[in-house]
Amino acid sequence: MIAKSMEPFLVGSSVIRAMFEEGKKMAKVFGEENVYDFSVGNPGLHPPKEVKEAINYINNEMDPHVVHGYMANAGYESTRQAVADNLNKRYGSDFDMNNIIMTVGAGSALNVIMKTVFDPGDKQVVFAPYFVEYANWARNYGAETIVVPPNEANGFEPDPEALKAALDPKVKIVIINNPNNPTGAIYSKETIQAIADVLKEAEKEYGHPIYILSDEPYRELVYVDREVPYIPDFYDNTLIAYSWSKSLSLPGERIGYIAIPKKSDNSEEFFNAAVVANRVCGDTNAPSLMQLVVERCMDAQVDIPYYEKNAKDLYKIVTDAGFDALVPQGAFYLWIKSPVADEKELVAAAKEERILMVPGSAFACPGYVRLSFCISNETIQRSAESFANLGKKYFG
Amino acid sequence: MIAKSMEPFLVGSSVIRAMFEEGKKMAKVFGEENVYDFSVGNPGLHPPKEVKEAINYINNEMDPHVVHGYMANAGYESTRQAVADNLNKRYGSDFDMNNIIMTVGAGSALNVIMKTVFDPGDKQVVFAPYFVEYANWARNYGAETIVVPPNEANGFEPDPEALKAALDPKVKIVIINNPNNPTGAIYSKETIQAIADVLKEAEKEYGHPIYILSDEPYRELVYVDREVPYIPDFYDNTLIAYSWSKSLSLPGERIGYIAIPKKSDNSEEFFNAAVVANRVCGDTNAPSLMQLVVERCMDAQVDIPYYEKNAKDLYKIVTDAGFDALVPQGAFYLWIKSPVADEKELVAAAKEERILMVPGSAFACPGYVRLSFCISNETIQRSAESFANLGKKYFG
Repeated sequence: MIAKSMEPFLVGSSVIRAMFEEGKKMAKVFGEENVYDFSVGNPGLHPPKEVKEAINYINNEMDPHVVHGYMANAGYESTRQAVADNLNKRYGSDFDMNNIIMTVGAGSALNVIMKTVFDPGDKQVVFAPYFVEYANWARNYGAETIVVPPNEANGFEPDPEALKAALDPKVKIVIINNPNNPTGAIYSKETIQAIADVLKEAEKEYGHPIYILSDEPYRELVYVDREVPYIPDFYDNTLIAYSWSKSLSLPGERIGYIAIPKKSDNSEEFFNAAVVANRVCGDTNAPSLMQLVVERCMDAQVDIPYYEKNAKDLYKIVTDAGFDALVPQGAFYLWIKSPVADEKELVAAAKEERILMVPGSAFACPGYVRLSFCISNETIQRSAESFANLGKKYFG
Repeated sequence: MIAKSMEPFLVGSSVIRAMFEEGKKMAKVFGEENVYDFSVGNPGLHPPKEVKEAINYINNEMDPHVVHGYMANAGYESTRQAVADNLNKRYGSDFDMNNIIMTVGAGSALNVIMKTVFDPGDKQVVFAPYFVEYANWARNYGAETIVVPPNEANGFEPDPEALKAALDPKVKIVIINNPNNPTGAIYSKETIQAIADVLKEAEKEYGHPIYILSDEPYRELVYVDREVPYIPDFYDNTLIAYSWSKSLSLPGERIGYIAIPKKSDNSEEFFNAAVVANRVCGDTNAPSLMQLVVERCMDAQVDIPYYEKNAKDLYKIVTDAGFDALVPQGAFYLWIKSPVADEKELVAAAKEERILMVPGSAFACPGYVRLSFCISNETIQRSAESFANLGKKYFG
């Protein structure tokens, strides 16, 4: 007996995850080296050595009662202060530990914020293409998702005018994911400023805060000479959701945080409510050992030049094969325009060449496909022939 | 701007957690050794040595991409098979890995099950005294909680007749927590059989399954010669939520599982839906390193005789002081009858003696208080004088 309300989730059950399973099956049939799986954003780079060192230190030198026991629901004070100090150093912000809540990854960070903000009937705005789980999560709290159509004309940057048209008094959250999954774009300062202007005006008109929920697990993954705008500099009511999944290659560990700027609306009260929401959502606290690990790895990073080379090499292979693609600026995704209107045709044709990609319709943006390039450079190199064959089908 | 729907959570915000913070403050003022904090169930025993060994092995010998990367949303296949094998060995059950979902602790296990089962307007039944978070979690999915009043006459075992009276066609879940938090009781086979009989009849009458959600993080913590009934032996539609928080002293790590018996309604379909729910609830998967740790610690346990001695010693101290208490059979709680109707008076008087306890009203059972004895035996011994003083206030 499964809830009726589960049906839309089951029908639309993650295309990306289905690909992940498909990839594993194909690897068994054709051999792992002959399958070019660009479907899942499962970081291929090992965590930096600091992670292993930190685990050994914590496991062998610290008090197990501290390492594995309950702490305050918001997380260890030392970890939260380390996050605050690190943000302050990098962005000149004024966080302290009472502005930081450790969470079970960014997914949980977003859920906790949504639980804190949404009453049934409220709304959030997202910009297509977008990570569809955003809408599923909002639905858990009775909130509806308004999708702003893709802004193809401007490199898929969010269109402030389209945002303005989408707003109404029920909108409480606008999600921005920058660097972006799935396009690999980095939104410009001008875009962020224009969005901030639209929202400030709307806040005044409606008489209540509208939060920018800044989902930024790819913050450090940048391959071009372009700054990732730090959104609280542009807009007070910004809530940050972060995860170390990508910067430290720890996606399985589910470790992230929420940062609540002091200048955001009723910041202290919001923090207290979000801590309660963290418990009420069922997670109690972020995994304890991993909190202590990231505390010791604040300045560590995976080998980002490796991904940068992947970005360049894959872009060249794909465009050499005749495809039209966005230059990846950040994250680890290449966004390709499908030569046929129904991009699922392209996905199927690619599978014939043992290439796995995700259709843009999984991100509410049909006509495009996403390739994850967080895999080995050797796999990317080996895929060249398959891409060339695929290109021949469409471009002769 | 905090959601109106958060208000009941904020007002009722965990009494237990407030005590936890209070205890830390008092320890600073009076010295840690002079505060007798029986408030939180934060296991005081160190994890067994197998945990440390497993972490060292996994961190230093295994592939970091496997250890920290994404796996199937349900968890590592090897971990799920190990859980299945362990259950089969102990209970003669027939689980395999496709009946097991690894979760972010038991809290998340319960949330995932609720998300899978509840449509808005559905109901669950709980037996007072009960862990109030059950009701908060159900509310996330639009479900209402029916509280069956405490069965004081029969050692707080659930009363099957009262359950019968509480049922209606909207009830989809009945939660059983055995060994029980907060009473320390172990429900008898006869009680479980009688509950199963009531529910089988109701399933027939209403024409749909009613799940027993068996929340059993205290399964191994037993201090008397009494078997903890394995509920799937009594009732097909039983879903198990487990956590290693207590048996391995890993409460901060958030590692647990859901077990879905093959004979439960539409078991396979339910498994698939629950895996999706695990993602839709925002957790994606259980923390990866800890999955691999528990896989290697299936037969390990904390030092249960230590808790058993605590149970005996605290029971003696408290009853010697004149209080009426239930003999703790399992879990790590002593349940005391308050000598005054408003047990918050007792809690306040105890605080004067630097004893922290949790009022029964936090479990929907006023007139009682809960003491956690998962602390050091030395603290329990040192608390004797304070309890004697407290007793004198009421019993002269």
